[in-house]
Amino acid sequence: MQDLKRRVLQANLELFTSGLVKYTWGNASGIDRARGIVVIKPSGVPYTTMTEEDMVLVDMNGKVIEGKLKPSSDTLTHLVLYKAFPEIGGIVHTHSPFATAWAQAGMAVPCLGTTHADYYRGPIPCTSALSEEQLKGDYERETGNAIADCFKALNPVHTPGVLVKNHGPFTWGQTPEEGTFHASVLEEIAKMAYYTLQINPSASCNEQLKEVHFFRKHGPTARYGQ
Amino acid sequence: MQDLKRRVLQANLELFTSGLVKYTWGNASGIDRARGIVVIKPSGVPYTTMTEEDMVLVDMNGKVIEGKLKPSSDTLTHLVLYKAFPEIGGIVHTHSPFATAWAQAGMAVPCLGTTHADYYRGPIPCTSALSEEQLKGDYERETGNAIADCFKALNPVHTPGVLVKNHGPFTWGQTPEEGTFHASVLEEIAKMAYYTLQINPSASCNEQLKEVHFFRKHGPTARYGQ
Amino acid sequence: MQDLKRRVLQANLELFTSGLVKYTWGNASGIDRARGIVVIKPSGVPYTTMTEEDMVLVDMNGKVIEGKLKPSSDTLTHLVLYKAFPEIGGIVHTHSPFATAWAQAGMAVPCLGTTHADYYRGPIPCTSALSEEQLKGDYERETGNAIADCFKALNPVHTPGVLVKNHGPFTWGQTPEEGTFHASVLEEIAKMAYYTLQINPSASCNEQLKEVHFFRKHGPTARYGQ
Amino acid sequence: MQDLKRRVLQANLELFTSGLVKYTWGNASGIDRARGIVVIKPSGVPYTTMTEEDMVLVDMNGKVIEGKLKPSSDTLTHLVLYKAFPEIGGIVHTHSPFATAWAQAGMAVPCLGTTHADYYRGPIPCTSALSEEQLKGDYERETGNAIADCFKALNPVHTPGVLVKNHGPFTWGQTPEEGTFHASVLEEIAKMAYYTLQINPSASCNEQLKEVHFFRKHGPTARYGQ
Repeated sequence: MQDLKRRVLQANLELFTSGLVKYTWGNASGIDRARGIVVIKPSGVPYTTMTEEDMVLVDMNGKVIEGKLKPSSDTLTHLVLYKAFPEIGGIVHTHSPFATAWAQAGMAVPCLGTTHADYYRGPIPCTSALSEEQLKGDYERETGNAIADCFKALNPVHTPGVLVKNHGPFTWGQTPEEGTFHASVLEEIAKMAYYTLQINPSASCNEQLKEVHFFRKHGPTARYGQ
Repeated sequence: MQDLKRRVLQANLELFTSGLVKYTWGNASGIDRARGIVVIKPSGVPYTTMTEEDMVLVDMNGKVIEGKLKPSSDTLTHLVLYKAFPEIGGIVHTHSPFATAWAQAGMAVPCLGTTHADYYRGPIPCTSALSEEQLKGDYERETGNAIADCFKALNPVHTPGVLVKNHGPFTWGQTPEEGTFHASVLEEIAKMAYYTLQINPSASCNEQLKEVHFFRKHGPTARYGQ
Repeated sequence: MQDLKRRVLQANLELFTSGLVKYTWGNASGIDRARGIVVIKPSGVPYTTMTEEDMVLVDMNGKVIEGKLKPSSDTLTHLVLYKAFPEIGGIVHTHSPFATAWAQAGMAVPCLGTTHADYYRGPIPCTSALSEEQLKGDYERETGNAIADCFKALNPVHTPGVLVKNHGPFTWGQTPEEGTFHASVLEEIAKMAYYTLQINPSASCNEQLKEVHFFRKHGPTARYGQ
Repeated sequence: MQDLKRRVLQANLELFTSGLVKYTWGNASGIDRARGIVVIKPSGVPYTTMTEEDMVLVDMNGKVIEGKLKPSSDTLTHLVLYKAFPEIGGIVHTHSPFATAWAQAGMAVPCLGTTHADYYRGPIPCTSALSEEQLKGDYERETGNAIADCFKALNPVHTPGVLVKNHGPFTWGQTPEEGTFHASVLEEIAKMAYYTLQINPSASCNEQLKEVHFFRKHGPTARYGQ
């Protein structure tokens, strides 16, 4: 568990030092599937003083198992996603500016080129708005449910991120580090898509080119890297 | 008083090191309500050499009580706000670029998502233009009056900032540090709102979602942080 | 002269370290009016290795008086401006991105608020395009002439900068340092004006407010600073 | 060869430290024309740990001559360009945000001013989309062919860069260092062109002015620098 705590801390710190997260506006978690334990950032604690021992361990119902601090207020959202997406090992939430702008616009980030296609297959979807009932209820859990609904017909390994409408991005990966990496990629492609559509509102990308790039980096046909 | 001078200095320096303020384009103050004394940055002094002893103490009429330097040229604006908003303990003024752009546009920053709703309830209002009479008169005091007018029907604790038309933002809080924090939040949400409306000019946010977020962080129902 | 060489070097280095100038895309000069000598950056020399002794001294006809290197390719433009504007002591040229974008757009930067009005009275003008004859002739001198023409009805002390159409900004001041400061202010207000008009294409600013701010910082009525 | 390996490493590192390349999203190469050997970055290796000995040497058919790592996945594109453009000695590929946005928009970057005209004669062209056949075939080689096709009527020394549609920029020069410099210039002028057209969608630049500037820095009439 110490190793996972260290890695979750590092994934959180990377969010801060890379500029993706200001103040306490974000969180990263990791899961130990064998034990059914999630390690997550504490709520509202400054990154500059955060230590490994501040990480909070919760079970799959959100009960704190270890740690002196309250877990992130978004903990229930993370738990819903870990249950819905058994393939993933780490989750990250940020309010990075361009990804958040697309979320506030209520629009998916279209795939307009290979920078996007190298890491995300198809658009980055945007969830539906929560209903009055959902907002009155268990808000953080319902946010997770809205994401899960959005992925009913999507593969979360091929599309490792989402925009929560009027809120901001959640991303994930096999590990907490990969969740952070996908958060960074998302911000970059959200920025590029913004610029692209300002230059040419009818820009689009050939489907076949996207597939070539995605499978150059993923699956049995991957030929990128060492 | 020494403690307040130190804190006001720190709030000013934070404006500079965070990039919210360039050159001498901004100021922070704090108030000792019991003694009726406001501590404020001196006028036109570079941040890089500013010391605790450069802070200027003025009474509620703007008379200098202590300090060798002239107080900020915006001192009278601060004093009007301290009188109009008895709940606040610190005030900050900047020319940060996105907040200033909204002020120059003469438009309130609409609340388009949770980053905004977490700290500001409702839009960040923009004052009316000063009249010819007000501009001929006591300009800095009238700027304060224009802000106070703008808040006749608003709660300054729930909306801890404003845009002064064709000028820039003023923010505040319980302390000088909180005033600086709200200045930083305002710049971030002004930037996000700008991007959002470029992506989707008809973007908007559900009122109920905003309320859930604001009261997740404020008042008796707050459940964020430790 | 050694003092002016040192100051011109510093003004040039400040352009580079502040990010206003990339590579060798800019230059600063200063004038010793009593001796009729201009000190200017050498042409195409990297800022990172530039020394005081690399500064080039030229007379008012552009003849090199001292220095082993060729002077800036824009030297003749500087000389025309020193002759046309006897009040100024330093000139700066950059390709800073927002100011250059307005120059490429062929449009003056309108004064939309107090950040601008504090330092520039009225819009930052944009020169006319050079004629075929002027382009065939003495290009750098004609660039200076185009600026001088643009200021026939303007006070260069009240408007310490200009956009050269399809090229970029020239700014000036009483000293090289002030020229650099005005280059930085221009980039900031060019950026704010850009954002402002994207938010509200019909934004404008009351003339009286601009005058109040300009004369709060300039002339006998100035009350800003110590 | 050791000297070329060192220079190719430096050109790659410069891409990373300048911010043009994030993660592993880019590559630089250099050619030894006498020996017919290209030195190129390995595929997917982090810049932060890359050494001279990680550089890969390939012959003109892409066969690895020296090096323990796999060469960049874009190696075949580089080889096509070295064959098509005998004048060049170094090639660089990035996903820098503004240049990539123009590539995603499928539009050439128009020359709108002297910053552009100083280094690129005429617009930065954008390739045609690859056909279904080309995408099914040898993708990286076909990308090179699409660039070469695009330059049938262009001089690659006068236009040292291109946008690959829906992908990103390739730039080149006499050396790897110059390829990196042109990548940086391209990003800067892509950004300026973006801002310019947002300010004034009908902005344009006089042809004669562009020629004056290009030939002030290039060819027998050059008079810039020492």
